[in-house]
Amino acid sequence: MSVPSWSLHPQLDADTVPVGELALSRLLLATDANFPWLILVPRCEGVSEIIDLDAPGQAELTREIAVVCRALKALVPCDKLNVAALGNMVPQLHVHIIARRRGDPAWPKPIWGVVPARAYDSAARDRLTAALRDALWPT
Amino acid sequence: MSVPSWSLHPQLDADTVPVGELALSRLLLATDANFPWLILVPRCEGVSEIIDLDAPGQAELTREIAVVCRALKALVPCDKLNVAALGNMVPQLHVHIIARRRGDPAWPKPIWGVVPARAYDSAARDRLTAALRDALWPT
Repeated sequence: MSVPSWSLHPQLDADTVPVGELALSRLLLATDANFPWLILVPRCEGVSEIIDLDAPGQAELTREIAVVCRALKALVPCDKLNVAALGNMVPQLHVHIIARRRGDPAWPKPIWGVVPARAYDSAARDRLTAALRDALWPT
Repeated sequence: MSVPSWSLHPQLDADTVPVGELALSRLLLATDANFPWLILVPRCEGVSEIIDLDAPGQAELTREIAVVCRALKALVPCDKLNVAALGNMVPQLHVHIIARRRGDPAWPKPIWGVVPARAYDSAARDRLTAALRDALWPT
């Protein structure tokens, strides 16, 4: 499902820190402390749309979305999950998974473009990535 | 995958016209002529998140998203598909599938809340729903 020539889009690289690798996708944490915001990026060169993945790839992406949704929901306060593949600005296929709370800085709007990104306290960011790794890759 | 007690959320009913029924989901056309904008609603009572569906339901939803994406992309000009399950305002699980064009009224932003809905010419709306039905339920 992945090819050696794949590399992460520079904009996604700039806006995130890595969490880990799933079978199909790289999991990233968006470095915006306003929202617990994860991004799944299938490691497939030239793929822009979900339907650019073959059927097994789509099935695996669905499985990974579910696994990440459950892990995120278990770790942070969450009234609603937002799951979205948009890609109008960054064409490399990526799926946003965001834990929303009533009263968060964009609620009830979608998060994109509503408020400026807020820097993480690095310890808080590291605690969240570590907790996600423990949940998704238990030892 | 569906139960007799399911009914469409009144807000989704008010903002759309029906296109047809897939195995899991009702397919709707959002009545906003700014964007070719479809909505899939699994006919499952009490389901708010993708992860509220069981694994076969998630797999079928994925299949239906792909089928609808391909049909929409074949019928209308499209630079990017946007696929999103948000649900901050309407808790009933529903998946937006929108054909985006460079230069459309919200481009490159996500569509929600950017411009007021624009009424369809009823003939244009009926042509689109008929073409979708021909593509998705060929006779």
